[in-house]
Amino acid sequence: MRNLTMLMDYYELTMSNGYFVKGFKDKVVVFDMFYRKNPDDGGFVVSAGLEQLIDYICDMRFNEDDIAYLRSKGQFDEGFLEYLADFRFTGSIDALPEGTICYPNTPLVTVTAPIIEAQLIETMLLLTINFQSLIATKACRICRAAGDAGSIVMEFGARRAHGADAAVLGARAAYIGGVGATATVMTDELYGVPAVGTMAHSWIQFFDSEYEAFKAYAEVYPDSCTLLIDTYDIMKSGAVNAIRVAKEVLEPMGKRLKGVRIDSGDLAYFSKKLRKLFDENDMKDCKIIVSNSIDEFLIKSLQKQGAKIDSYGVGERMITSKSDPVFGGVYKLVAVMNENGDFLPRIKISENMEKITNPGRKKLWRIYSRETGYALADLITMYDEEVDDTKPYRFINPEKPWKNMQYDNFIAKELKQPIFKDGKLVYDKPKLDDIKAYVAYQLEHNVWEEEQRFENPHVHYVDLSPELYNIKKKMLEENAK
Amino acid sequence: MRNLTMLMDYYELTMSNGYFVKGFKDKVVVFDMFYRKNPDDGGFVVSAGLEQLIDYICDMRFNEDDIAYLRSKGQFDEGFLEYLADFRFTGSIDALPEGTICYPNTPLVTVTAPIIEAQLIETMLLLTINFQSLIATKACRICRAAGDAGSIVMEFGARRAHGADAAVLGARAAYIGGVGATATVMTDELYGVPAVGTMAHSWIQFFDSEYEAFKAYAEVYPDSCTLLIDTYDIMKSGAVNAIRVAKEVLEPMGKRLKGVRIDSGDLAYFSKKLRKLFDENDMKDCKIIVSNSIDEFLIKSLQKQGAKIDSYGVGERMITSKSDPVFGGVYKLVAVMNENGDFLPRIKISENMEKITNPGRKKLWRIYSRETGYALADLITMYDEEVDDTKPYRFINPEKPWKNMQYDNFIAKELKQPIFKDGKLVYDKPKLDDIKAYVAYQLEHNVWEEEQRFENPHVHYVDLSPELYNIKKKMLEENAK
Repeated sequence: MRNLTMLMDYYELTMSNGYFVKGFKDKVVVFDMFYRKNPDDGGFVVSAGLEQLIDYICDMRFNEDDIAYLRSKGQFDEGFLEYLADFRFTGSIDALPEGTICYPNTPLVTVTAPIIEAQLIETMLLLTINFQSLIATKACRICRAAGDAGSIVMEFGARRAHGADAAVLGARAAYIGGVGATATVMTDELYGVPAVGTMAHSWIQFFDSEYEAFKAYAEVYPDSCTLLIDTYDIMKSGAVNAIRVAKEVLEPMGKRLKGVRIDSGDLAYFSKKLRKLFDENDMKDCKIIVSNSIDEFLIKSLQKQGAKIDSYGVGERMITSKSDPVFGGVYKLVAVMNENGDFLPRIKISENMEKITNPGRKKLWRIYSRETGYALADLITMYDEEVDDTKPYRFINPEKPWKNMQYDNFIAKELKQPIFKDGKLVYDKPKLDDIKAYVAYQLEHNVWEEEQRFENPHVHYVDLSPELYNIKKKMLEENAK
Repeated sequence: MRNLTMLMDYYELTMSNGYFVKGFKDKVVVFDMFYRKNPDDGGFVVSAGLEQLIDYICDMRFNEDDIAYLRSKGQFDEGFLEYLADFRFTGSIDALPEGTICYPNTPLVTVTAPIIEAQLIETMLLLTINFQSLIATKACRICRAAGDAGSIVMEFGARRAHGADAAVLGARAAYIGGVGATATVMTDELYGVPAVGTMAHSWIQFFDSEYEAFKAYAEVYPDSCTLLIDTYDIMKSGAVNAIRVAKEVLEPMGKRLKGVRIDSGDLAYFSKKLRKLFDENDMKDCKIIVSNSIDEFLIKSLQKQGAKIDSYGVGERMITSKSDPVFGGVYKLVAVMNENGDFLPRIKISENMEKITNPGRKKLWRIYSRETGYALADLITMYDEEVDDTKPYRFINPEKPWKNMQYDNFIAKELKQPIFKDGKLVYDKPKLDDIKAYVAYQLEHNVWEEEQRFENPHVHYVDLSPELYNIKKKMLEENAK
């Protein structure tokens, strides 16, 4: 395995060297990672990427070459370079388990660590959580759209992914979000996401005729024969040859043609024509698979047109989250520990209202209806607060702080789990299939339909405890003086 | 280094196994990699990513775990698995050198190899060329916009990149496209792209006051002090404290404040206010750096508003090519060698007109005006054609095939260079700085201004030799029968 320790922004190092030189090396701080806006103006995000963050932190080592490189920059104190040579992460991290449905302005990851350690992990923390959450969320949208008509989705995007990690880990994230399989072999080998695939157009072009190409494939793969039928002409050539192979090659072996794929043309029109043709030819079990610039919007449109599609191969629009390719997670200092061990809250004000942070060391709770199991809201409290769900709880909705609001008949669950404690990994990484099942469970049992729709989804409530609200208000007022 | 051999689409393996079982293992074919549309409807693409393709092919080895994994799929012939265990690429590759300005429907890479070898490298070939060409092209657009007002661009995107490779190699590609520096440390260590950076908001929040934070930074980095001034209030607090540090901390040491950065607020408004303030305070040399959702369109808008910006830190919109995040390079079979060693052209027809390929083993030429040095057109010929530029040359413009057209007083240069010959690397990988300089040279000397503008750029001519045109026409007519 390559070592990604040096994958960080240069300012992490200039700041860390500065803290070291100024004697702040052991000063403990708290950072929150959160995001501000759901991709595609959706109702929520599917969190992902924690496993890769854990791996990064466990493997973090500056080797001799790294130190020599840093020395060559002429900016770093020798004592700091010695410190780096012995670097180990000794802090604590709480985070949402992968697959947690989550919302803007709530902490997905909280790091409590000496300032230099908290700073040096920033770039990779953001990079891995941002990217995989983006793709898991996009995949979840696409799979929900397809699932409405009982269709399944396969991830086909490696060639258009933004580099090797995007291909391999993007397919992992897409699986968490709901896809059934991937084309990316390495994601199967490394993470157990089932790899699938049959043929490209080149297979057909390689042979002297489309029929010969189909026949050869059927002979090699009689049990899993799916034919790509749009190399020359879908109806005049592809479909005709597919039926001929089904009858002349597969049937005599007692086998069935599993499916056909089209990768161009009008997918609604051709899927209906093909369904009719196959049904008339005693091939009701022959699946119709489509690819070519699929996303949740195209799927919805195809469904409206009555397309007959069993399965979607989704490439570039999922693996790049084309319609909204940036997941803007940020990592903000929210508290600094003083000499007495108390965490003093810090805030970031901004000319841009939405860039103002929630100060302090905090907990994140999800509030469920005791009756229905649906999540009513998220609640952020200070770290030392407990939420007693045996009686009504007064909270502040930051959008309408003047209203007197309370939860009744609810269950409160703390969402962040301890991942590292004082440098020690205290978390059992769940299996990928369990993460995927957890997403599906929440969508079925906890997340309102109104939050799952694509158009103007319900905005999930993120409420503050009265204590947190008052601390934030006081800090804003002091700054405005 | 990790081994990326298994980063391929599953269908590469099912097809390859099929070719093996059917006895076509040694059949030589030709594949072209090309793309169909310039990103952002621009006039051209900056090709990049060849170095990583070369590394991939040189390192390609299936290890025992890979073979065991493939065996577990229950689909592959044992003879094929043995073949894979000994796999080495023995084919030939011609390609555009990195940094070549290039155009739709012209081959960027041509692979001539036994069918299985040509197929197994497909996914990584596309992935690496697609991604880095996308980012080099986007960076080139952003840098051209900034350069129009003499400003420079720094790449700040790692945290929003699509995984680790996207961060590291995206910064490499951005450097090819024209950025002056990156925040990504690993890209400096591995590729020598200068890494830069100073402080995040957390540095300011960590200290008890903004002034103390600035003072501490100036003391540690008196020679390279750039201050982030928008944590609390840009004009009332940040600018005031920056000037105070310049006067009280740096001046007594004989040092100057190098610059300030703002990452929020109205960048046009504040940059003008700050420029005036610094100029009045004898700080004409204090640079103004801005970040926050910058791209070529925002830069153009800021310039129109008379913003006073020396340098742009560009993050998410460059590293994801946000406005057009998919580079749709494809890899198509164009010829198969027959028993006599002749290459028989193959074509891919499609319901979608733009998906029809140029058949045959071909050469790509660029036609330059002998007078001005500007590139007049690209010309695609069959492989055995030579273009004699000492006399007029008749060609076919595929958009207007009925017109009689010729080049006069021109220079023809073949663009693709031999990279691998019969499995041997025959290419000296150029230095990154030379690739970057090559891009700048072409933009200055070869590429028309009209192709470089963002709105409705001139569409570069891609012409065909009469021989190629006739082969293509004949194949289309035969298919239509």
